[in-house]
Amino acid sequence: MKIKIGLSNKHLHLKQEDIDVLFGKGYELTPFKPLVQPGQFACEERVDIVGPKTTFKGVRVLGPARPETQVEISKTDARAIGIKAPVRESGKLDGTPGCKLVGPAGEVELDHGVIVALRHIHLSPDQAKEWGLKDKDQVKLKINGERGLVFDEVLVRSGPGHEKEAHLDTDEGNAAGCGGEAEAEVIK
Amino acid sequence: MKIKIGLSNKHLHLKQEDIDVLFGKGYELTPFKPLVQPGQFACEERVDIVGPKTTFKGVRVLGPARPETQVEISKTDARAIGIKAPVRESGKLDGTPGCKLVGPAGEVELDHGVIVALRHIHLSPDQAKEWGLKDKDQVKLKINGERGLVFDEVLVRSGPGHEKEAHLDTDEGNAAGCGGEAEAEVIK
Repeated sequence: MKIKIGLSNKHLHLKQEDIDVLFGKGYELTPFKPLVQPGQFACEERVDIVGPKTTFKGVRVLGPARPETQVEISKTDARAIGIKAPVRESGKLDGTPGCKLVGPAGEVELDHGVIVALRHIHLSPDQAKEWGLKDKDQVKLKINGERGLVFDEVLVRSGPGHEKEAHLDTDEGNAAGCGGEAEAEVIK
Repeated sequence: MKIKIGLSNKHLHLKQEDIDVLFGKGYELTPFKPLVQPGQFACEERVDIVGPKTTFKGVRVLGPARPETQVEISKTDARAIGIKAPVRESGKLDGTPGCKLVGPAGEVELDHGVIVALRHIHLSPDQAKEWGLKDKDQVKLKINGERGLVFDEVLVRSGPGHEKEAHLDTDEGNAAGCGGEAEAEVIK
């Protein structure tokens, strides 16, 4: 049960209302590169993320627009910028801290939405079935090499619009010694 | 087999010749706080680490002086500063990249010495004997919690001057969700 690892650097997802403020009324995000997850893409657009301790300049926006704006950073980033971001599953933003976003057309003061992404794997319904897994299961991910390790508590996310890929952040990738083309073994 | 985790932020060890250049001829390092490892201490002294992409200002020196200058950074730091630092055991510096160090009295251009520390545990000879381990053995470290994981390939370092403690860097600590007071289980 092998799976490719996608390493997430800090990035953000935007709701249309915030795109309007940051880039201009009715603005549409410009695809720069497709992601592995179907229909998702890295955008040409970048914004600054402003926290109490520093500003991350030119952070990549991922599209398409979402129902809620979500900023994903690593624990290393969280310390650097001075925001106590909790580890959360995507979209579970209740009680999370906010930050300021600065775009070419305006600024947005978020009162919540900054998280450290909970590590997870994506599987299509067929891929999940083949491995005997379902949405919300927990698996382990084993990575070999000089910094080999086994991540416990890895969430399975499966359904239409998902495609086989493991998502780790840069701290996790660095701790495991992963380069861009790394693979992991899924352990039930 | 429980062990406390010591998380290492970027830091450096200096040989006396480099202390002389950075702080002044015959300068002695000033202890600021003792470390868990006997005889070792964080120093009052800080230096700037200069790489191709950025400068880390005011990085803490650890004492006492060593036979060779060694700069320890995380993989995250390595990318930020633009130095391809390899994962290495402390003191194994052949073929490693260098950097510039800037102190209050002068600058040192290192032609090698920048590493990402290989994760390891320290044990006194008695502690190693009690656990049936010896210097250069490999163990696993299990850490529980929302980012629970098992580090494989963890080096045992044992001998006089060692005291029970696991050393991880900030990427590893963040990937495991460790705070300052975290503990791990040693697995043979």
